[in-house]
Amino acid sequence: MVGGGKDAFIGAVHRIAARIDGEYDLVAGALSSTPERSRDSGVALGLDPDRCYGSFEEMAGAEAARPDGIEAVAIVTPNHVHGPAAAAFLRRGIHVICDKPLTATMAQAAELEAAIRASDALFILTHNYTGYPMIRQARAMIAAGDLGRIRIVQVEYAQDWLTEAAEATGTNKQAEWRTDPERSGAGGSIGDIGTHAHNLACFVTGLTVESLSADLHSFVPGRRVDDNAHILLRLNNGARGMLWCSQVAPGNENGLRLRVYGEKGGLEWGQEDPNYLWYTPFGEPKRLLTRKGAGAGDAANAVSRTPGGHPEGYLEGFANIYTGAARAIRAAQASQRAPDLDLLPGLEEGLAGMRFIDACIRSSRDDAAWVTP
Amino acid sequence: MVGGGKDAFIGAVHRIAARIDGEYDLVAGALSSTPERSRDSGVALGLDPDRCYGSFEEMAGAEAARPDGIEAVAIVTPNHVHGPAAAAFLRRGIHVICDKPLTATMAQAAELEAAIRASDALFILTHNYTGYPMIRQARAMIAAGDLGRIRIVQVEYAQDWLTEAAEATGTNKQAEWRTDPERSGAGGSIGDIGTHAHNLACFVTGLTVESLSADLHSFVPGRRVDDNAHILLRLNNGARGMLWCSQVAPGNENGLRLRVYGEKGGLEWGQEDPNYLWYTPFGEPKRLLTRKGAGAGDAANAVSRTPGGHPEGYLEGFANIYTGAARAIRAAQASQRAPDLDLLPGLEEGLAGMRFIDACIRSSRDDAAWVTP
Amino acid sequence: MVGGGKDAFIGAVHRIAARIDGEYDLVAGALSSTPERSRDSGVALGLDPDRCYGSFEEMAGAEAARPDGIEAVAIVTPNHVHGPAAAAFLRRGIHVICDKPLTATMAQAAELEAAIRASDALFILTHNYTGYPMIRQARAMIAAGDLGRIRIVQVEYAQDWLTEAAEATGTNKQAEWRTDPERSGAGGSIGDIGTHAHNLACFVTGLTVESLSADLHSFVPGRRVDDNAHILLRLNNGARGMLWCSQVAPGNENGLRLRVYGEKGGLEWGQEDPNYLWYTPFGEPKRLLTRKGAGAGDAANAVSRTPGGHPEGYLEGFANIYTGAARAIRAAQASQRAPDLDLLPGLEEGLAGMRFIDACIRSSRDDAAWVTP
Amino acid sequence: MVGGGKDAFIGAVHRIAARIDGEYDLVAGALSSTPERSRDSGVALGLDPDRCYGSFEEMAGAEAARPDGIEAVAIVTPNHVHGPAAAAFLRRGIHVICDKPLTATMAQAAELEAAIRASDALFILTHNYTGYPMIRQARAMIAAGDLGRIRIVQVEYAQDWLTEAAEATGTNKQAEWRTDPERSGAGGSIGDIGTHAHNLACFVTGLTVESLSADLHSFVPGRRVDDNAHILLRLNNGARGMLWCSQVAPGNENGLRLRVYGEKGGLEWGQEDPNYLWYTPFGEPKRLLTRKGAGAGDAANAVSRTPGGHPEGYLEGFANIYTGAARAIRAAQASQRAPDLDLLPGLEEGLAGMRFIDACIRSSRDDAAWVTP
Repeated sequence: MVGGGKDAFIGAVHRIAARIDGEYDLVAGALSSTPERSRDSGVALGLDPDRCYGSFEEMAGAEAARPDGIEAVAIVTPNHVHGPAAAAFLRRGIHVICDKPLTATMAQAAELEAAIRASDALFILTHNYTGYPMIRQARAMIAAGDLGRIRIVQVEYAQDWLTEAAEATGTNKQAEWRTDPERSGAGGSIGDIGTHAHNLACFVTGLTVESLSADLHSFVPGRRVDDNAHILLRLNNGARGMLWCSQVAPGNENGLRLRVYGEKGGLEWGQEDPNYLWYTPFGEPKRLLTRKGAGAGDAANAVSRTPGGHPEGYLEGFANIYTGAARAIRAAQASQRAPDLDLLPGLEEGLAGMRFIDACIRSSRDDAAWVTP
Repeated sequence: MVGGGKDAFIGAVHRIAARIDGEYDLVAGALSSTPERSRDSGVALGLDPDRCYGSFEEMAGAEAARPDGIEAVAIVTPNHVHGPAAAAFLRRGIHVICDKPLTATMAQAAELEAAIRASDALFILTHNYTGYPMIRQARAMIAAGDLGRIRIVQVEYAQDWLTEAAEATGTNKQAEWRTDPERSGAGGSIGDIGTHAHNLACFVTGLTVESLSADLHSFVPGRRVDDNAHILLRLNNGARGMLWCSQVAPGNENGLRLRVYGEKGGLEWGQEDPNYLWYTPFGEPKRLLTRKGAGAGDAANAVSRTPGGHPEGYLEGFANIYTGAARAIRAAQASQRAPDLDLLPGLEEGLAGMRFIDACIRSSRDDAAWVTP
Repeated sequence: MVGGGKDAFIGAVHRIAARIDGEYDLVAGALSSTPERSRDSGVALGLDPDRCYGSFEEMAGAEAARPDGIEAVAIVTPNHVHGPAAAAFLRRGIHVICDKPLTATMAQAAELEAAIRASDALFILTHNYTGYPMIRQARAMIAAGDLGRIRIVQVEYAQDWLTEAAEATGTNKQAEWRTDPERSGAGGSIGDIGTHAHNLACFVTGLTVESLSADLHSFVPGRRVDDNAHILLRLNNGARGMLWCSQVAPGNENGLRLRVYGEKGGLEWGQEDPNYLWYTPFGEPKRLLTRKGAGAGDAANAVSRTPGGHPEGYLEGFANIYTGAARAIRAAQASQRAPDLDLLPGLEEGLAGMRFIDACIRSSRDDAAWVTP
Repeated sequence: MVGGGKDAFIGAVHRIAARIDGEYDLVAGALSSTPERSRDSGVALGLDPDRCYGSFEEMAGAEAARPDGIEAVAIVTPNHVHGPAAAAFLRRGIHVICDKPLTATMAQAAELEAAIRASDALFILTHNYTGYPMIRQARAMIAAGDLGRIRIVQVEYAQDWLTEAAEATGTNKQAEWRTDPERSGAGGSIGDIGTHAHNLACFVTGLTVESLSADLHSFVPGRRVDDNAHILLRLNNGARGMLWCSQVAPGNENGLRLRVYGEKGGLEWGQEDPNYLWYTPFGEPKRLLTRKGAGAGDAANAVSRTPGGHPEGYLEGFANIYTGAARAIRAAQASQRAPDLDLLPGLEEGLAGMRFIDACIRSSRDDAAWVTP
């Protein structure tokens, strides 16, 4: 693991997600940006001190040289480190599981793209919300035509943790780097959570954004990146949509919600209650589909661990990406292609996300003009 | 009553709303556009046949001439009749309670404005959703500063009854006139329900829309007006917002929902569950305020009839407009101004709605350019 | 109207319910137990002072003697007055619409039964919750066999307004008479709200209670009647059930909830969200049936006024009893039987309720022994 | 691990729960009741074939003899094996984590009690629902007096998977042993899920059941144990309650719900939406407390892994028991007592559960007479 030392919320999430299905052992790390803190964090996690490295470069070199070196690495640093770190491992044939967004800048994204294309190793991007069983169910239903031609996509991701200037208190590392364009990229809320919303909408519908009109805004005085974004979407099949993301909406903890409407029906899902999917065939009563319940199909059941009514959550959804990655890695080691590889987000989704962020910023600077991502 | 004969959903609603608090008696009507059907409908409603008129002109003249003539008239026709009918009664000093939107066209609106300004009689526009107790509560809380400065306004109004071409079946009068630009005006969903969403957002926040960017669309082949609208909003205090209205979103019956976020807290309300208002002071647990419950204040209690937990609905909210109008009429008859007259929608709100429709259409024709309503 | 003067919550409810569909005019009343207050209340409601009476006896006599005397009377007094007041009108051939429970005591019930049987006039008991459209829907579905043989009935009615000793504050008339055995009867919560729960369960399932085991309790020191009741039910088809009612459960405003499970499916309904009915055919996804929505049938639609998504509530449900009574009265005046008379609660339901209260008290005094109602 | 081979739902749950926080490695097992299947299951899970045993006796002996033998064992067999298996390991000083209920019979429970008391090793019973953060929150709030004296406890656990005779199809191992008195014990639903409801109510309130009146029933023809139970409760502080459990209630997947009402407030929680806890201080609006949200305190936060809005579920709650057990074992190895040992269910809770089952059966056989557990 690269990154994920103390104070790093997402590192612990990745570690649990990797453990849930027993497919990974954590054996090495460059967990912090200073050698000493990296070692401390590693030992605290039970790593062999010899495999606690001071930098990702050192780690990539040393692990590649070991006969028992790591097969895959998780990169969970701030965004500006994603690119160089991933490249260092990919170059050495080590599979990479990387947090989103792909990188902090378009230039870094292009460099990383080259590194990925030049490597035989796999690159998986943890757009974790695509791992939820009922999201897989929604995608499968739309692919099967249950909604008919898609007309409308309403997606939103609302939080409230940046309602005040948390980055200015001196005690909130998360808020600091996520509102720092040097580390986070030019997008604030749009990069941190808007990309998740964009990715989810595309994953579920199978559509792409053809053009968008974005009105980004920063409500908190002194904030250097957007904390709210209102975006009109035109999708490649003629569908229209809206995307709202905000980190200043009091009462919203982690409100990622997706609604899709087609000629024949509608689907509604919310991340905070992820075991439910609302399905309305036009002209019939609304149905509550539940994970592993009567209405759940193969796509959902393949990534469920417990019977209906035993709620699975964020960590299990995240674990579905990790376990899918493990299967893909195992297949790759056998020179095969995992059958469900197309369900795993990777380079393509990462580039789409970067183009989305870039397009939003371009559009917003041009007073919400329509731009092509 | 003008309009509201057979097959007219909204006429029956107005009649019940007028009855609930016992403030009105229905004694005369021009209920249909043909004299015979008007008479039949009137007699079926128990009207004296002598007071069932063949046209609103006839009715206005005859009632104004009677010593026991009507004090007020309800106009519940298709939109293109609102203006001339209202003017006919206003001219004769008869108070008018009129369905929204104000008129079908901007030109009609200007004519009606002149008629209203020239009359001593009151003109009330039934933006009925402002009559809900918890909407009054929300408005009062925002006015009192409970949310601090408002930053974000998310409002939507989703239905599904026009998902298919109901207007082409030959059996759905409602669908026919509401999708006919001659009778409904140039706006489809934006005029029928978008104006309610716009009005509600402004009523609750006390803000106005400074500029908007609208993407209107008609998904059903052959439909002559928009059936879906995606709109970016910029409000006069610097707040930003989104408005979505749709009549082709399967699974939505009458989904008018409003969310408002400010520096200090957030409010969320949905029309289908109108007795609840969610309030989150930033940094504290979300609270469920209920009509006549512990968290409801004077503004809500003044328009509630039953204790908490005894749900009041659409008709009671509508009745609150009618009963407010009765108080205003009684005050006017005593040459006074009713203390809560500013809570009643009228000319100003009607013009704002017309400018909103017009701005949406102008913006959409210009590829969602920003326009001023 | 008898009773229903100032401070009387339920009187105003009856008046609105009678008005909603325009079937009744309020023309006379004995609204309070003292002549003077009765007159004041009547005049405040717009009654002719000549028809504001000092007692129900006076009113019954005078109205029966008038050529334009009332056709029907609503009795909305405390429980101990129901019997004698109803009898006074029935004796004179005036139809009676009476609040529940039937009377305060079994002896009064027997006397009233005799009066009803001796009269040609109708006797309607306002078990108003049976008027909700989705309750009619549930009843029709069960009667049609959609749930198969019923096995389990879970019904509850929870409130919190008596959590503290509201009757001892000297300012709460409602709390005073409802906790006074002389006026309310020996049952407290069991009479006030438990009877509604019992009636609703029987109305929906078509079953009767064969035996019950009741554990009544009074939690508030000094309270003279039960404020909480836990009851096991055995129904006449072999089904089992539970009834809980409480007036000391903080967080419950008017929580009447019914769940019925059969061999083939389940139904769930809650009074505070009355436009929804949850239906699960065993082995299929849960469906949300909505008033006037795709899954609503004739039984519900017959008592609905507005399209789906336009919430109807407590007053509309109550009005359905009043309007049903109007149809029944009109039929009776034509010497006919209204086709839906069996949907209206009356003597039979009233007696069942009295036997239920009596059985609960007997059982509880015998340490929750099984008794037959 | 003993038990938990193929077809064993709960074995996989225990393995994931043990892995989530990285405190356990699975190294040995007697996973099935036949040596061959045990070996197959073990190898499939990646165990060393030498540590795949044919019986728990063999495993206990061999592991105790190894220098690297297991420190703790998880017992996840049908109920009748719990006692002898646990005793075999406890006798050898190996800590035991055992599924509930304690045993199949009271006699087995007494034997196991003796074995536990005679051993220095720890015995943890996986009443896993006590591991949910918001359940810990509820317990802490009640202990702190937030609800005042507790008056009413409503607990229920409803499922529908045995609505039909699943045990007679020949394909449902779960249904077979859970309805077989030889393997499950005399209680059906009451033992399988009623014990969870009983345990949860006692854990949260800190109260015990002083007497109960139970009406058990088996609705499915041919079923040998109860599939529905209705129970009145009297608690040791004078509170009253109800417990309903059912496996034949269509539409309920895993509906464990707890509501507790006291003199000063109420709490409501449902297992299927476990990140929420509803709290109403009497006379104030209802509040929605969320895991790691503004209203969550130390007791909940200590067992939460992710920020609010990132749902944790059944497996995380289960893992909290396992991780608590790991801390307790580590403390025991250091001859200390873990500070939160009293939060872990063990012998005392197991015996209370057995007495509860036994009392229900005794009461029900005596027509729901009051009995003391």
